[in-house]
Amino acid sequence: MKLIRFGAIGKEKPGVLIDEKRYDVSSIVKDFDEAFFEENGLEKLQKALESNPVLPEVSADVRLGSPVARPSKIICIGLNYVDHCVETGAPIPAEPIIFFKSTTALCGPNDDLIIPKNSEKTDWEIELVFVVGKKASYVEEDDAMDYVAGYCLHNDYSERAFQLERGGQWAKGKGCDTFAPLGPFLATKDEIADVDNLSMWLTVNGKKYQDSNTSNLVFKIPFLVHYLSQYMTLLPGDIISTGTPPGVGLGIKPEPVYLKEGDVIELGMEGLGSSKQLAVGYKK
Amino acid sequence: MKLIRFGAIGKEKPGVLIDEKRYDVSSIVKDFDEAFFEENGLEKLQKALESNPVLPEVSADVRLGSPVARPSKIICIGLNYVDHCVETGAPIPAEPIIFFKSTTALCGPNDDLIIPKNSEKTDWEIELVFVVGKKASYVEEDDAMDYVAGYCLHNDYSERAFQLERGGQWAKGKGCDTFAPLGPFLATKDEIADVDNLSMWLTVNGKKYQDSNTSNLVFKIPFLVHYLSQYMTLLPGDIISTGTPPGVGLGIKPEPVYLKEGDVIELGMEGLGSSKQLAVGYKK
Repeated sequence: MKLIRFGAIGKEKPGVLIDEKRYDVSSIVKDFDEAFFEENGLEKLQKALESNPVLPEVSADVRLGSPVARPSKIICIGLNYVDHCVETGAPIPAEPIIFFKSTTALCGPNDDLIIPKNSEKTDWEIELVFVVGKKASYVEEDDAMDYVAGYCLHNDYSERAFQLERGGQWAKGKGCDTFAPLGPFLATKDEIADVDNLSMWLTVNGKKYQDSNTSNLVFKIPFLVHYLSQYMTLLPGDIISTGTPPGVGLGIKPEPVYLKEGDVIELGMEGLGSSKQLAVGYKK
Repeated sequence: MKLIRFGAIGKEKPGVLIDEKRYDVSSIVKDFDEAFFEENGLEKLQKALESNPVLPEVSADVRLGSPVARPSKIICIGLNYVDHCVETGAPIPAEPIIFFKSTTALCGPNDDLIIPKNSEKTDWEIELVFVVGKKASYVEEDDAMDYVAGYCLHNDYSERAFQLERGGQWAKGKGCDTFAPLGPFLATKDEIADVDNLSMWLTVNGKKYQDSNTSNLVFKIPFLVHYLSQYMTLLPGDIISTGTPPGVGLGIKPEPVYLKEGDVIELGMEGLGSSKQLAVGYKK
């Protein structure tokens, strides 16, 4: 299945994509949130759809929200692409580097990117996300995929001055509003034949900056589920963003490139669709 | 008002403390969660209590949960006590250091501390928490206290090897289950005459390790609200933990002291009550 959420900000309804068309499933499920995943909602929805219910079609011009409702956490993995480590001159990490993104950053795949007040270094990061399907604590790597509900496309926007020049941890540069456009859809595991071989790309104003493949991931999803679950309990619906490949603005030579009002950012991943954000200034 | 939540884990009900006695207010409010604070719940509850309703008394032996339901985020401030900076030899930060604690760490004030699997360096940190009362984005320091609902006692448990020896950010050592016992109660702002002058103490097996006062805070609450709201939107019910004074296990000379099964940790803060945790090993 391909799950979407559609409608106005904060009032999204659940839907599914079938043959490129959008259908409203709010008569079957309440939302794609923690309770949905926890209560075996994926299986129930699948069964409901197999009986071919009549579902209202949703117009293609309706806004898409994040395909997953606000979760308990968004965890990101740092420096998780071999080629990105080479680009930045950083050694390949011995263990995953992890940090949190404020869940208030979550938004729809095509919502405007709001460049924060006082920002001069807003940057992009295309990433593969996996969504947690059930409560995970001290999970073995061999069992890990049982805890994954599916995958999404994510742009892990990052303000580099906030992240790196304001002292201490990275938290300040990762959680600004609209810094986590997710989707267009959540693809359940069965939709993706080989999650370790998905090509991906990101352009700014039509110029390609990122062009890689999930085959370059240092730490793959089963290990990440195992590893993270040693340090905290993952909850159903939690969003784990697996890191970005080379080509972020910070790494451009001879000078970094950062986003400004009017820039158009487009990104896509094999099997997970594409998204597009327009950069706008902050307005109260 | 002094707000409590009581009952079994995951099934807590809202209550209030009046003259040391506990009363069930679940007939008036649903829970002390984001919606409660957002919808002006404090004022409504205050009004309801002024009409002297008959409230069921709750026995003193019923478990207390966190006085606030699981919020969108727990943000912590690092190195925020002048005397703690001196102790660790760290310079006083020019700007607040911030990091997130996984919200799954949240638990009741007297729940057992579960020492994580493979942990050898579980440490304590008494902290003053303030709870956000309404949505805060780009707030001016002069207006900041309008965004604060009240205060709680918090023990920001930290696994120092996970935090400092596993590469990258601090996230791994801060969010283990039971690492955030909060309470016993949330004191609304009016209950605390001077939040910048609260004495606090923490003992392990009766020996005093932390003994300080909020007057030693480097960055005070109004500045923290203003500062954090430049980087992310704070939501009603969010928990902000303001940092710990000297005396954590990591800083003990000549050798650090860490917690082991059977240790009893007790802590208290002027006007915010006290809490007590028994350290236990992880059991599946």
